[in-house]
Amino acid sequence: MKAARLYTYDSKLVIEDVPKPRITGPHDVVIKVGAAGVCRTDLHVIEKVWKDTLDTEGTLLPFILGHENAGWVDEVGSAVTTVAPGDTVILHPHITCGVCAGCRRGEDMYCETAGFPGLAMDGGYAEYMLTNERACIKLDPSLQPVDVAPLADAGITAYRAVKKAVPRLQAGTKTVVIGAGGLGHIAIQSLKALSPTEIVVVDTNPDALELARQIGADITVDASEGDVVEAVKDLAGGDGVEAVIDFVAEHGTTDQGPNMLRQGGTYYVVGYGGNVNVPALQVIFSEISVVGSLVGNYTELSELMELAAAKKVTLHSQIYSLDDANVALDDLHHGRVRGRAVLIP
Amino acid sequence: MKAARLYTYDSKLVIEDVPKPRITGPHDVVIKVGAAGVCRTDLHVIEKVWKDTLDTEGTLLPFILGHENAGWVDEVGSAVTTVAPGDTVILHPHITCGVCAGCRRGEDMYCETAGFPGLAMDGGYAEYMLTNERACIKLDPSLQPVDVAPLADAGITAYRAVKKAVPRLQAGTKTVVIGAGGLGHIAIQSLKALSPTEIVVVDTNPDALELARQIGADITVDASEGDVVEAVKDLAGGDGVEAVIDFVAEHGTTDQGPNMLRQGGTYYVVGYGGNVNVPALQVIFSEISVVGSLVGNYTELSELMELAAAKKVTLHSQIYSLDDANVALDDLHHGRVRGRAVLIP
Amino acid sequence: MKAARLYTYDSKLVIEDVPKPRITGPHDVVIKVGAAGVCRTDLHVIEKVWKDTLDTEGTLLPFILGHENAGWVDEVGSAVTTVAPGDTVILHPHITCGVCAGCRRGEDMYCETAGFPGLAMDGGYAEYMLTNERACIKLDPSLQPVDVAPLADAGITAYRAVKKAVPRLQAGTKTVVIGAGGLGHIAIQSLKALSPTEIVVVDTNPDALELARQIGADITVDASEGDVVEAVKDLAGGDGVEAVIDFVAEHGTTDQGPNMLRQGGTYYVVGYGGNVNVPALQVIFSEISVVGSLVGNYTELSELMELAAAKKVTLHSQIYSLDDANVALDDLHHGRVRGRAVLIP
Amino acid sequence: MKAARLYTYDSKLVIEDVPKPRITGPHDVVIKVGAAGVCRTDLHVIEKVWKDTLDTEGTLLPFILGHENAGWVDEVGSAVTTVAPGDTVILHPHITCGVCAGCRRGEDMYCETAGFPGLAMDGGYAEYMLTNERACIKLDPSLQPVDVAPLADAGITAYRAVKKAVPRLQAGTKTVVIGAGGLGHIAIQSLKALSPTEIVVVDTNPDALELARQIGADITVDASEGDVVEAVKDLAGGDGVEAVIDFVAEHGTTDQGPNMLRQGGTYYVVGYGGNVNVPALQVIFSEISVVGSLVGNYTELSELMELAAAKKVTLHSQIYSLDDANVALDDLHHGRVRGRAVLIP
Repeated sequence: MKAARLYTYDSKLVIEDVPKPRITGPHDVVIKVGAAGVCRTDLHVIEKVWKDTLDTEGTLLPFILGHENAGWVDEVGSAVTTVAPGDTVILHPHITCGVCAGCRRGEDMYCETAGFPGLAMDGGYAEYMLTNERACIKLDPSLQPVDVAPLADAGITAYRAVKKAVPRLQAGTKTVVIGAGGLGHIAIQSLKALSPTEIVVVDTNPDALELARQIGADITVDASEGDVVEAVKDLAGGDGVEAVIDFVAEHGTTDQGPNMLRQGGTYYVVGYGGNVNVPALQVIFSEISVVGSLVGNYTELSELMELAAAKKVTLHSQIYSLDDANVALDDLHHGRVRGRAVLIP
Repeated sequence: MKAARLYTYDSKLVIEDVPKPRITGPHDVVIKVGAAGVCRTDLHVIEKVWKDTLDTEGTLLPFILGHENAGWVDEVGSAVTTVAPGDTVILHPHITCGVCAGCRRGEDMYCETAGFPGLAMDGGYAEYMLTNERACIKLDPSLQPVDVAPLADAGITAYRAVKKAVPRLQAGTKTVVIGAGGLGHIAIQSLKALSPTEIVVVDTNPDALELARQIGADITVDASEGDVVEAVKDLAGGDGVEAVIDFVAEHGTTDQGPNMLRQGGTYYVVGYGGNVNVPALQVIFSEISVVGSLVGNYTELSELMELAAAKKVTLHSQIYSLDDANVALDDLHHGRVRGRAVLIP
Repeated sequence: MKAARLYTYDSKLVIEDVPKPRITGPHDVVIKVGAAGVCRTDLHVIEKVWKDTLDTEGTLLPFILGHENAGWVDEVGSAVTTVAPGDTVILHPHITCGVCAGCRRGEDMYCETAGFPGLAMDGGYAEYMLTNERACIKLDPSLQPVDVAPLADAGITAYRAVKKAVPRLQAGTKTVVIGAGGLGHIAIQSLKALSPTEIVVVDTNPDALELARQIGADITVDASEGDVVEAVKDLAGGDGVEAVIDFVAEHGTTDQGPNMLRQGGTYYVVGYGGNVNVPALQVIFSEISVVGSLVGNYTELSELMELAAAKKVTLHSQIYSLDDANVALDDLHHGRVRGRAVLIP
Repeated sequence: MKAARLYTYDSKLVIEDVPKPRITGPHDVVIKVGAAGVCRTDLHVIEKVWKDTLDTEGTLLPFILGHENAGWVDEVGSAVTTVAPGDTVILHPHITCGVCAGCRRGEDMYCETAGFPGLAMDGGYAEYMLTNERACIKLDPSLQPVDVAPLADAGITAYRAVKKAVPRLQAGTKTVVIGAGGLGHIAIQSLKALSPTEIVVVDTNPDALELARQIGADITVDASEGDVVEAVKDLAGGDGVEAVIDFVAEHGTTDQGPNMLRQGGTYYVVGYGGNVNVPALQVIFSEISVVGSLVGNYTELSELMELAAAKKVTLHSQIYSLDDANVALDDLHHGRVRGRAVLIP
């Protein structure tokens, strides 16, 4: 089968023929890939950012990228009961065991022995890929792999952060979304579907702000102009807002976010790169919280698929063929992607 | 001032001139009434249903009805700091003390010494009425008393039940609303604003179902035809739904509601008249809950006013002059009111 | 191996030699039984109460009873990774799939394809039994199977009800436990470990009340004397209590429970036999809830094992050999068991 | 009456005769002080630390210190209904309005117009002091002012932080308490009363660790020896703990705290002085939270009084006469106070 493999860090992927993956365990599932999202994390993998975490022994390469995948079930292991060849599915990014403490609580990202296709084993930049039964979510007939693949990772990451925030977002509250890109535009739609909070979107890119307004932002703030913290506080009558969800978390936003909060507010961290650095005195006197959010679990991805089927969350994407994987990565690197890039094998 | 007073149970109100109420305590507030909702409870008061509860000594009559009130602040007591003459306000139905355990937890309906205008003391079927500072919520400039008065009681009663349900109403769930009348039509809009649940409305009145569809019901079920429990279960793939909110709770709905639930579901009781009667074995095996909901607190009414200001909840009403109070009550009694009847002094 | 099998409803178990169960699936686990709890449900199975639910086709008999089991891992299937022969384990009563929606949320009792040893397939009144990997919880070295077997079902059933109640049981609240038998005595200890609520125990048996006091009850009420609802209300200053957990739920307790509640209180139903029958008007005016509780999940059983290891929950038991299974059942039937009966193969 | 007043920053209090406070508002209450806690914040006030926050116009001095007060009601305003002269009470530290949004939610520390005796107006280092009805909590007859006065501030501050943590502290979890001083020793007892978590106490003072063990710490760690983060992780099997409550939050503990957490853990900040500085990458990958906690509300202080009455929380104190206020402050400054210093007028 055709696949895009990384042979050397800091270089282009090689498009080549490799053997199709095979079923070996009783819960294995082989997927015919229908679409694979292209993510900034893919750039980071190529740039060696993750090597120390995921390729400690230096034996990972060559391997196939792609951790946001959807497609059709091709073959199943002997103990698989819930999916069958031909089923259209989206894949939770973790291949989980189902028996550790994390799995038992329903938190797939806490699985102690999880496999991570596209990051630590072969992923979905290919015609076929290997996963297991526990990763598969059957899609509503109205949805195709290309409509949803990036929701497998970018989508649930935005959605989980929103779900953490929603219990505090009553009518009359304001929520700031920092960053209206791939994750942010899912967060805006999810907030709209799950709460009556007034949505304030902060970004430096006018096109991103325009998209934000179209999909439900009540107010947009151009972060390239003036003091964005003051601008947000002014919008909130001087007091600050109940929640800030930061999809950037670098280039200064980790300083801005906590200062946008009113007393009792919460700063949700989803992006990374910067440091959260707040005086304990401010944490206490403003009684604020800082809450991290990590991808999402199977149940959350299932709920997001329900929102997608109900057309309450729609992905904005730009499509490439698998042969053009390097073009897609290059476009992403140079800011030429509108919405989310998706590869089709 | 003009007022509509009940002199004898089971008879018409008398429209007459009475002295305007006066400030006597430091937190008293006199309101120039802008609008007063007409509620089925008013019929019950006249019909003597509440006499044993609220008029135990038989000394209440004559008194002025009206427990859903909005208007303008006319005069304030010496210690009042948060409202001033001229402010447009809606009134929480309870006049609360602010110092008992119930008030300290923010639960105004649990106030141990509350006054209840329109039910146990003079209410809002008049040009002026007496309340206190703690009952007043200032309105957004976009809202007038006539737009919101019935939300003071019917509105928060629906809203509180919805808020109790919302934490369980994730994407992919279904919620049944039994009764699409004065409370139900606020509940439907509140559900729409606060959750992605699919809304199934059950009523015997085709007009009510038509209104329900217009304001957000995803599915409607005519309860006058066939087996309504089976109809709901069929809609839910045979399993039942996560939540049923019953605004009727008589004429058999208390039997239907619990049987519409899937395993782990909850039946919210808001109406009354019937008995909730479920075998303990069913309560356990289906692991269902039955949850009562009583009016709502000040914070909930404040949130509902935010939804009204944002046009996410809109009241459908039919307007009468105070002089026609008896006409309004008669129309309500005979099912001739569309939405909610409102009196204007 | 030796086993106690039910051949005919309404008759004694037959103690006989049967083939030892064998591994057939990749996640199967064979357990050498160390102890099996004897439960009132076993009497009900024999008395044919469950036939229509669990033996619809009449093909279940003969089978081995016993649904509260602990022991040592004897043999494991090819895909099992988390337990190994020799491990001491307690078994969650359900054999679950790990891939249905219920399992994914961590709710083992909601598994759509669960097996139920001792009720719908061979259980633990035997030297060996079959379960799967997902049912096994490794025991702390300080615990032996005989110390904990009945906690597998009776224990988590009590514990889950307590966990549902605990968020409302702040200092200064009172909780009524109706029934201080096998489940109730675990509930009392769990309440003590998890909350500062004052524990009021209601039972008709003076010995049970004496045991209740020894293990943490703050107040006991003899239900065989006078008006138990009035007695509880008097204890609570006339107002009623925040929570009632009913392990009986028949013989009139379903009428008493809701009437013992203060405004906003909750009635937890764990026992069965009676009907919960409350006027909707009372549900609303008192704003009470009725909450069912069904056994418990794997995480809850794990937590209960932590409480047992920390000696915060101790089982009171009466031990029989497997050969005396019919004696144990007879003693239970005639009220001659103190605490919980346990069979040792 | 006798009072201890601060005339000049950075100097001793002056013990002198001043006029007894008088009732002027309808909800005013004059208290005959029974006991006043001496707090490190008093030292900070004297040292001018708070001048810029609380004495911006430089008009505060001379004033009476003391913000942890209990005593007997002496005189009440015309509208006071819930306390009467002679009642024994503890005082919530804030004098609140009862009508702002913060008060309506039950959050007394969020009151928009609160008075703060002992910090921004005359406090309890005197024979009498002025407060209002909403600040008064009647004491159980078993408690005297001297037993509880410091719980009014130090106590609820510890208790609120514990209450925020408790929902996550199931059996089998571990909780680290950093600092076993005035606040920490209340936190340890509160944790013991409210949860089954295993309590690990970290302090540099061997006497504090000894006290911690006596009142319920399961494990103590001497922070003056070796790597405290490693020590805690070792105790937790290498993984870290579910919760860290930091009553110090300076001298490096703000770096240690977040690093002691396991995946999904929470760091509660109560002390101040240092900065919380964590890479966003760590916040996300470990999915940790940082939660500030600010004093506590009226309901929380009421609950703490229930724990005190039930002897589940006991204050360790060292008593001084009001005449020796400067001695007490000097002893506190030089670390010569065991438990909490209390002044008796």
